[in-house]
Amino acid sequence: MDRILASDIGGTTCKMGVFTPELELLHKWEIPTDTSDGGSRILENIHQSFQSEGGKFGYSREDVIGTGLGVPGPVDFNNGILNGAINLNWTHRKPIAAEFEALSGIRAIVDNDANVAALGEQFKGAGMGHKDVVMVTLGTGVGGGVVSNSLLIHGHGGAAGEIGHLLVDYEQRFQCNCGKKGCLETVASATGMKNLALHYYGDGKDTLLSQEIENGTVSAKMIVEAAQDGDVLGLRVVDEVARYIAIALSHISAVTNPKYFIIGGGVSRAGRILTDRIEHHYRPITFPPAYENTEIVMAELGNDAGIYGAARLVRQYLA
Amino acid sequence: MDRILASDIGGTTCKMGVFTPELELLHKWEIPTDTSDGGSRILENIHQSFQSEGGKFGYSREDVIGTGLGVPGPVDFNNGILNGAINLNWTHRKPIAAEFEALSGIRAIVDNDANVAALGEQFKGAGMGHKDVVMVTLGTGVGGGVVSNSLLIHGHGGAAGEIGHLLVDYEQRFQCNCGKKGCLETVASATGMKNLALHYYGDGKDTLLSQEIENGTVSAKMIVEAAQDGDVLGLRVVDEVARYIAIALSHISAVTNPKYFIIGGGVSRAGRILTDRIEHHYRPITFPPAYENTEIVMAELGNDAGIYGAARLVRQYLA
Repeated sequence: MDRILASDIGGTTCKMGVFTPELELLHKWEIPTDTSDGGSRILENIHQSFQSEGGKFGYSREDVIGTGLGVPGPVDFNNGILNGAINLNWTHRKPIAAEFEALSGIRAIVDNDANVAALGEQFKGAGMGHKDVVMVTLGTGVGGGVVSNSLLIHGHGGAAGEIGHLLVDYEQRFQCNCGKKGCLETVASATGMKNLALHYYGDGKDTLLSQEIENGTVSAKMIVEAAQDGDVLGLRVVDEVARYIAIALSHISAVTNPKYFIIGGGVSRAGRILTDRIEHHYRPITFPPAYENTEIVMAELGNDAGIYGAARLVRQYLA
Repeated sequence: MDRILASDIGGTTCKMGVFTPELELLHKWEIPTDTSDGGSRILENIHQSFQSEGGKFGYSREDVIGTGLGVPGPVDFNNGILNGAINLNWTHRKPIAAEFEALSGIRAIVDNDANVAALGEQFKGAGMGHKDVVMVTLGTGVGGGVVSNSLLIHGHGGAAGEIGHLLVDYEQRFQCNCGKKGCLETVASATGMKNLALHYYGDGKDTLLSQEIENGTVSAKMIVEAAQDGDVLGLRVVDEVARYIAIALSHISAVTNPKYFIIGGGVSRAGRILTDRIEHHYRPITFPPAYENTEIVMAELGNDAGIYGAARLVRQYLA
C-alpha cells in the first residue's frame, strides 16, 4: 500500500496531503505553522502530523515512497536547500530535505511554493496534463512557475519562472523590491494596482475611489470592485494591469511557447474582467505561431495546488 | 560497433557526421544539397552517402542506433514532420522521419536547424554540458534554441525559442516578416543592422558609411567594420543592436535562467565589440538572481554544431 506524502508550508498553515502512487489525493488536512523560536518546530510538527494521521489512515513509514515539500522561499532544488524564508522565521540557509529525511527516515524533495503550485496545476488542474504550461500568480507580489517537457524549469541558479521581474513597464515608473524599476510586479500585483491607481488619479475624472485614495486606504480589491461597477479609474487600472501581463505572456510565449497560461493568486479573483483584457492585449503583440492554440485560463486547484505539485515531484524524482 | 548518424541539411550543403554512442565525432564530410525537382532527391542522397561512407568507415546498417536530422524549417518534433522549407524547395508538410526510416530501415529523429545547433553547443560546445543554456543565432534573421534540464524546449506548437520575435523595440519602428513590428529580428539581424543604420543616418554626424548608405549598398559587415574603425554611426548601430539583444536576454533570464547565452551566426563575427556592449546593457535591466553567474559567450562549434545536436537527439530519444 504505497503512499506519497506532501506538505505545502505557508506562513500561517501547512497544507498536508496523502496520495496514492498514481497521485490520487486520499486525505488532506491543515496544521497551524508554529513560527515561534525561529520556526524550529515546523518540520517536526509536520512529521508528527503525518505519523499520527498515518495511524488513522492505515499507512506506516514503510509504505511511504517519499515526501514532497513546498516552501515559501528560494530553493536550491538539486540539493534540497532553502535559502531563507522570512514568513517562517527561517533566516538562514536550511537543508530542508536532509533535515526532514533525518526526522522521518523517508526520502524528501523540496521546491519553492510557486513552483509546486505550477506543477500541481499543470498535471492535475487547469493545465489538464499538458506538458508545456506556465503559471502566473498575482498576489502581494507576482510569482510564477514554468513547466516544459512536463518538468519544472529551475534554471542554473533557481531563478527560472521569476515572471514578476520581467521588464514590462518601459517607462520604469515604480520601484520594485528587487532594486530595479519596471518589473511586472510593480504594475500587476496588489501593490502594483495601487501604484497605478495613485498614478492615474487626478487626471480630472471622477472616480468612486477618490475617498480611499485620498485617505491612503485604497486596496486592489476596491479597485477591482470599482471596475466591476464601471468606474472609469478602476477600469483603466484593470486594463493597464492586463496590458502589462499581456506583455509578459508575449515574452514567455516566444521563449517556451506554453499551451496554457494559468492565472492564480488574489488579484486573479477579478476574473473575466481581467482575463478578457489580457486576451485583448496579448495576441496583437505576440508572434502568431507562439500564441496559436495557447489559452489563458484561471487556476482550478486553489490551496490544493501545492500539495499536488509536491506529490508530483516525489513521483518524478524519487519513485 | 554501435554508431549514430547525423545530418544537418542546409540550402547549399548537407553536413554529415558519424558518431560513437558516447557522441565522439568519428568522421564528418559534406555533400551538396540538390534542391532541383522540388528537392526530391535530398533524403535519398543523404542515405546513399551514409551507405557509401559506411563502407569506407567499416559500419553497416545493423550497427546504427539511429539517424538525427536537422532541417531549415519549422518541425512538429513529436511526429517528425517538417512544415515546409523554402530553401530546400520543400513547399509542403513532409514526414521527414518516416520517409528517412523507410529509405534506410533505421530509426530517425528530426528537429529544426536552430534547435539542433543549440543542443550541439549546449552539450559539446560553449555550453560545456551545462543543463540550462540558450543559443541566439544572429544571421539574416534571428533564431534561437532553449535547452532546459538538458532537453530542448519545443513548446506546444514548436514555437519555443523564437527569440527573434521577442518584442524589444518599444517604438515598434520596423516591420518584421512575421507581420508584427518591434521584434528583435528587426533590430539585431543583418537586416536589422541596416534598418538602424538608415534610421540614424542623417542625424548630422559624419560617417564612413555615407556613400554606401546613399547607394543602398550598406551591409551588416560594413557597419561592423566601420564600428571597429571608430565610426560614430557604426558604433551607435552596434550599441543599439547590443541593447536590444540585452533586453531579449533579460526577458529570457527571468523565464528559464540559463547559465550560458551562446551567441552565434554571421552578425556575431563582430565579436567583442558586440558582446561587451551586450554585457553592458544586460545586467542593469535584469533581475539580479536571474543574471548571477550567467555568462554571455560566443558559439564554438561553427558548422559542426548541427550534427552534434542531431546526434545528441538520437542519444536522448532513440538510444
